[in-house]
Amino acid sequence: MLAGIGLMPHGNPVLEPEDEETRKLAEVLKEIGRTFSDVDSYVLVSPHNARMSDHLGVVLAENLVSWLPFEGKEIPGEWKTDRGLAEKIYRVEKEAGMPVVDLNFASLRGEYSRWPLSWGELIPLSFLKKKPLVLITPSRGVSRETLVKFGEVLGDVLDMEEKKVALIISADHGHGHSENGPYGKVKESEEYDKLIMELINGNRIEELPKLPEELVRKALVDSYWGMLIMLGAMRKAEFELRTSAYACPTYFGMAGALWVRKG
Amino acid sequence: MLAGIGLMPHGNPVLEPEDEETRKLAEVLKEIGRTFSDVDSYVLVSPHNARMSDHLGVVLAENLVSWLPFEGKEIPGEWKTDRGLAEKIYRVEKEAGMPVVDLNFASLRGEYSRWPLSWGELIPLSFLKKKPLVLITPSRGVSRETLVKFGEVLGDVLDMEEKKVALIISADHGHGHSENGPYGKVKESEEYDKLIMELINGNRIEELPKLPEELVRKALVDSYWGMLIMLGAMRKAEFELRTSAYACPTYFGMAGALWVRKG
Repeated sequence: MLAGIGLMPHGNPVLEPEDEETRKLAEVLKEIGRTFSDVDSYVLVSPHNARMSDHLGVVLAENLVSWLPFEGKEIPGEWKTDRGLAEKIYRVEKEAGMPVVDLNFASLRGEYSRWPLSWGELIPLSFLKKKPLVLITPSRGVSRETLVKFGEVLGDVLDMEEKKVALIISADHGHGHSENGPYGKVKESEEYDKLIMELINGNRIEELPKLPEELVRKALVDSYWGMLIMLGAMRKAEFELRTSAYACPTYFGMAGALWVRKG
Repeated sequence: MLAGIGLMPHGNPVLEPEDEETRKLAEVLKEIGRTFSDVDSYVLVSPHNARMSDHLGVVLAENLVSWLPFEGKEIPGEWKTDRGLAEKIYRVEKEAGMPVVDLNFASLRGEYSRWPLSWGELIPLSFLKKKPLVLITPSRGVSRETLVKFGEVLGDVLDMEEKKVALIISADHGHGHSENGPYGKVKESEEYDKLIMELINGNRIEELPKLPEELVRKALVDSYWGMLIMLGAMRKAEFELRTSAYACPTYFGMAGALWVRKG
């Protein structure tokens, strides 16, 4: 059963918040962690792991290992893949005609079956109680319809699953919020982030697929494709927004949101 | 231009040979290194990197980073991807209808565009002068015909390439050579390894696709699928065998072979 959804940022500032907004955001992330402390597994969708032009990936490697920090912010650790659930998701997505590959590394089983994690996974995971997980990698070259459909199929699998599972979407939003940032200041970043928070807080996530292509591109986000998967999965049951927050302490926008299943 | 081909093992014993056969094998590996010391780039096909059921992979990540040793035998180092050649190979294979994905990690460009290496790449690379490379991952779930075709398309790309490129096939053979090994002793390992050396030394690589499925499976090898790619690539020009050797100091068979382009 899909117990709920956490939209979580992966920017270093949430680890040691230096302003009030970021502190509030970190509180939301901690609440996501507490709320999902009783689930059996996570499904984690991250834009900073394997990146393929036109295929999504489901990691089957048994051991998920901290590897690549951002700006030297090490978050050591190892996690276990929920291999049974990962295999099920891969198989059902494949049968549904989705462009998806299974990802393993070195060996198919055992201690040498390992997969590296980046800050894209490690920062959300640092707010979550350690549990087995299924790591999924979205793709920007796949159509919006396909990403939503992938999410629907994922929602179906989780709906039939006896285990309680939380879906975690790792996502940062506009990256052009500061003259001093690597991408400078672009108005679309502000526009996108404002709109995303309106869709979240106004229960209007269904409008995501209608966002103009140009806005998404110019806003320099990594959130959009994972959130389309989230939308698909959320269609399979009713969820209510428990809390949300937004902060932009540096050059990129970060959002946290927690939805829990109704009833 | 495809300047030549090196078939290279990835077993720790070649790093510190303890018997005469393994020493001779290590000499062949060193000769491969010397012979290819003037090429511009390598294309390296490895069975112990990303493993996908039904897709081959071409790594586009810019930085290839030592990550996973076997039995603790660390071989530190970083290599650069020949990104231009990698993109060309991925594009042409894709256009030829091959089941292939491009593999990147974390970021599409720059210092955070990284990909992990295992012993499967690190041991062959430790005998080769440091140069840019293209890492390709084969797949066991793809038909023999498709693997040979993938090799032919690869051969076409390299044939039109101005750079001098060496193709390196990382491969170990039967893994059932010892009662004390993890897979015990199986007669097919001996049979497969004997046959492979006959095909190599008798200029009969074209017979590879005819090997019985059952023999390949029972022999417990990781060489077969990469060697089918090698066969395809070798069809695009004439090559002569310069040297070869075989050793089996522990439970798995290792072969080295060097082919150079004729004329």
